[in-house]
Amino acid sequence: MTTDAKPSPRERLLEAAATLIYRDGVSIGVDALCKAAGVSKRSMYQLFESKGELLAASLEERASAYVATLLPAADDNRSPRERIMHVFDQLASQAGAPDFQGCRYLVVQIELKDQSHPASRVAHRVKENLTAFFRAEAEHGGASDPNLLARQLILVFDGASARAGIKADTPTGLIAPTVAVLLDAADLR
Amino acid sequence: MTTDAKPSPRERLLEAAATLIYRDGVSIGVDALCKAAGVSKRSMYQLFESKGELLAASLEERASAYVATLLPAADDNRSPRERIMHVFDQLASQAGAPDFQGCRYLVVQIELKDQSHPASRVAHRVKENLTAFFRAEAEHGGASDPNLLARQLILVFDGASARAGIKADTPTGLIAPTVAVLLDAADLR
Repeated sequence: MTTDAKPSPRERLLEAAATLIYRDGVSIGVDALCKAAGVSKRSMYQLFESKGELLAASLEERASAYVATLLPAADDNRSPRERIMHVFDQLASQAGAPDFQGCRYLVVQIELKDQSHPASRVAHRVKENLTAFFRAEAEHGGASDPNLLARQLILVFDGASARAGIKADTPTGLIAPTVAVLLDAADLR
Repeated sequence: MTTDAKPSPRERLLEAAATLIYRDGVSIGVDALCKAAGVSKRSMYQLFESKGELLAASLEERASAYVATLLPAADDNRSPRERIMHVFDQLASQAGAPDFQGCRYLVVQIELKDQSHPASRVAHRVKENLTAFFRAEAEHGGASDPNLLARQLILVFDGASARAGIKADTPTGLIAPTVAVLLDAADLR
């Protein structure tokens, strides 16, 4: 985006928002965000209308990387079953990190409690895209009810991610057998 | 607890904490809680050491009612399968309320991001008890791996509750078939 090696104030604000809001929650103050980014409040408000808009932009900015980390390559020649399991393997790997607090696109919607908030709308869309991936793979794999299977898989994704995030459980020995049971029940190839 | 018909300041604070923290999140201020309860801050701090202790007490206070709403009667003579489905029927019914934001004992842990917080510990224990119910029923029903089945059921409980809370999905046509598939795979009677 820029030829300058040093991150711009906008980039620093997006990074600070992504990091601190995930770590501390959406109630974190504008002062703390600006301080972490090394940007004045005046500059922040020149770049973003509000903290909510900054949060939405930071989620949007990370969306492509999030999807790229989770999804398999488009043309990897694996079966729908393997491609779906790939997503859950990636989730299990992410959930192993000590600072994992659950999927940020789920957490932010839970915290904001307002589905019309710009950041909630970004987060909702990102997860809808993940659900659409599950649905497409379910269709390719001849699932008996692709829409139901997609809803079940995103439910498992969010449930496992939330429970790992609060350290109530780990994905080990849980996600893989659960997903396998659902794929088998749907007769997925 | 009291013969006085009028709720005590302590009861009013517990009620205000339960209602407002669920509606607005754990970052809600002490001023707002005291105002809603009609109690001075001075009185609040005489009753509770901190907002965190008030929150923990309010979750504790509601725990029995929460469990009673979800769980079947101890001696209802139904099969383990039916008793487990009862819990999910209750969840589906709760999730239909317009102000449903997900299970409060999950949400508070996600928001606090600190598993050593007194309120997180109360919430963790309440959900552990629900998992223990699932495990006991799985054992009674001869499940092939009662511990795995219990982990799967609480995962579905939290996933479905979180997704209904953010209006990403509804339990209708989702929870019952998902739970049925897991119970069948575990050979539950």
